[in-house]
Amino acid sequence: MEFWFSERHTDNVELSIRVEKQLFSGQSDFQRIDVFDSVEFGRFLTSDGNVIFSEKDEFTYDEMIVHVPMAVHPNVKKVLVIGGGDGGVARELSHYEEIEVIDVVEPDEMFVEVCKEYFPDNSKGLEDKRVNIYYQDGLRFLRTSHNEYDLIINDATDPFGHTEGLFTKEFYGSCYKALKDDGIMVYQHGSPFYDEDEGACKAMHKRVYNSFPISRVYQAHIPTCAAGYWLFGFASKKYHPLKDLDAKRWNKRGIKTWYYTTNLHRGAFMLPKYVEDLLAEEEK
Amino acid sequence: MEFWFSERHTDNVELSIRVEKQLFSGQSDFQRIDVFDSVEFGRFLTSDGNVIFSEKDEFTYDEMIVHVPMAVHPNVKKVLVIGGGDGGVARELSHYEEIEVIDVVEPDEMFVEVCKEYFPDNSKGLEDKRVNIYYQDGLRFLRTSHNEYDLIINDATDPFGHTEGLFTKEFYGSCYKALKDDGIMVYQHGSPFYDEDEGACKAMHKRVYNSFPISRVYQAHIPTCAAGYWLFGFASKKYHPLKDLDAKRWNKRGIKTWYYTTNLHRGAFMLPKYVEDLLAEEEK
Repeated sequence: MEFWFSERHTDNVELSIRVEKQLFSGQSDFQRIDVFDSVEFGRFLTSDGNVIFSEKDEFTYDEMIVHVPMAVHPNVKKVLVIGGGDGGVARELSHYEEIEVIDVVEPDEMFVEVCKEYFPDNSKGLEDKRVNIYYQDGLRFLRTSHNEYDLIINDATDPFGHTEGLFTKEFYGSCYKALKDDGIMVYQHGSPFYDEDEGACKAMHKRVYNSFPISRVYQAHIPTCAAGYWLFGFASKKYHPLKDLDAKRWNKRGIKTWYYTTNLHRGAFMLPKYVEDLLAEEEK
Repeated sequence: MEFWFSERHTDNVELSIRVEKQLFSGQSDFQRIDVFDSVEFGRFLTSDGNVIFSEKDEFTYDEMIVHVPMAVHPNVKKVLVIGGGDGGVARELSHYEEIEVIDVVEPDEMFVEVCKEYFPDNSKGLEDKRVNIYYQDGLRFLRTSHNEYDLIINDATDPFGHTEGLFTKEFYGSCYKALKDDGIMVYQHGSPFYDEDEGACKAMHKRVYNSFPISRVYQAHIPTCAAGYWLFGFASKKYHPLKDLDAKRWNKRGIKTWYYTTNLHRGAFMLPKYVEDLLAEEEK
């Protein structure tokens, strides 16, 4: 049987994944959620027709958004995860004994329930005793928070659609206020390759660059993302992502990874010329 | 009009590019060659239905396979390019004044002619006075060559099909013999992501690892390749790709690039854990 899921990465490029079976389809208050099973990527979840993660490549994303800041900040006690209802980020955070509180703010309860049923390897992260789930809007949650977190991870997927408010200037300002004096924020920075994504990528960098003293971008290769190429942002009040990387300490922890190493950490900040140029334009 | 070119990266994943117009279609003695025009990737060329390069992302490939060894080897006079009939590799080599001879060995004359007509930005590289084109089989050409080249670039595209002979143990042995005592060979290493590509990637590393004293793998992000992720091999008799990188000298040259920088050069050798593990298995 020819049974395919297709996603337009732009109007002119499409990635298609052969599907074995559709496992779930539902409409929450926020998005249409579908779960598929496939030979190539295992199970994968889509939101309004866009792949959010797959069993085969979610490790890359979750490891890169968690271990990069955790290998830099010397003493993370309290973490805020915005979005992250699948639990993959919480799962990676749960490796760190020094963390005392993991607040996960996810507006969409159905998303959490679907992940619990179909992606237990991710959602087990939410079972950690240190995790509190708040079914709320991330921006609203942030407004009441001051000088509280060591690390904020913005796991929201998309600068458009229902998470649009998590990519505004106000949002980054609120993150800044919610962080302690040596806090770090990491966030999804999108894919810079296609012309139509370039604008969003540049605008985001400008906002963060103007909000934080240290603002750097790092990369990973994620096949189900547009062009297979994804950027993350690292914004910080004090710690530098390379100068303050403590590779020895991180390696002593013995955390098992599939993508991240402290060596790759360094390489991830070494960007192609066209990406460097695109970001530099916003730093003038 | 819905007019799409599709390539199966595996039996279960397909990348599709919207086509404006088919510009050429022909059958040579070696392959079916097609040229398409598209909004997203500009013109692109396919061989037997597989994208070989596009105007939008060929820079990444050509820069990474040329500038990485050229920023390491201190004195390249004579270069052999196996395949490379499009001229992109020769174009990047032509920036280096110290090079005296660029031998391009391409079996398929039709391929060269098609590139001349449709990809003049690539094929202008073949007009450099130092370039000699030999319409021959690469392996046969190599057998007569001893202690002759400072750099061999294996630009052949695919370990299967008509270039299969360029990925055998005999081929790497012949390259070793054809290189001078401080020679470097670089080559395409394929994409390691999908299960069905993993075997070819591992087998290739084993052959080169056993043939050269220094053998390292580096990466680039190329959207039209399988999973958007491509590896290159760096095999060398003397120079180490990182310890012998002379960034200062290379940057003085003022070569305009779109992807390569000497900083990215370093990062390109910092591989994801799963790639490191896959290669390490062959080094036992």
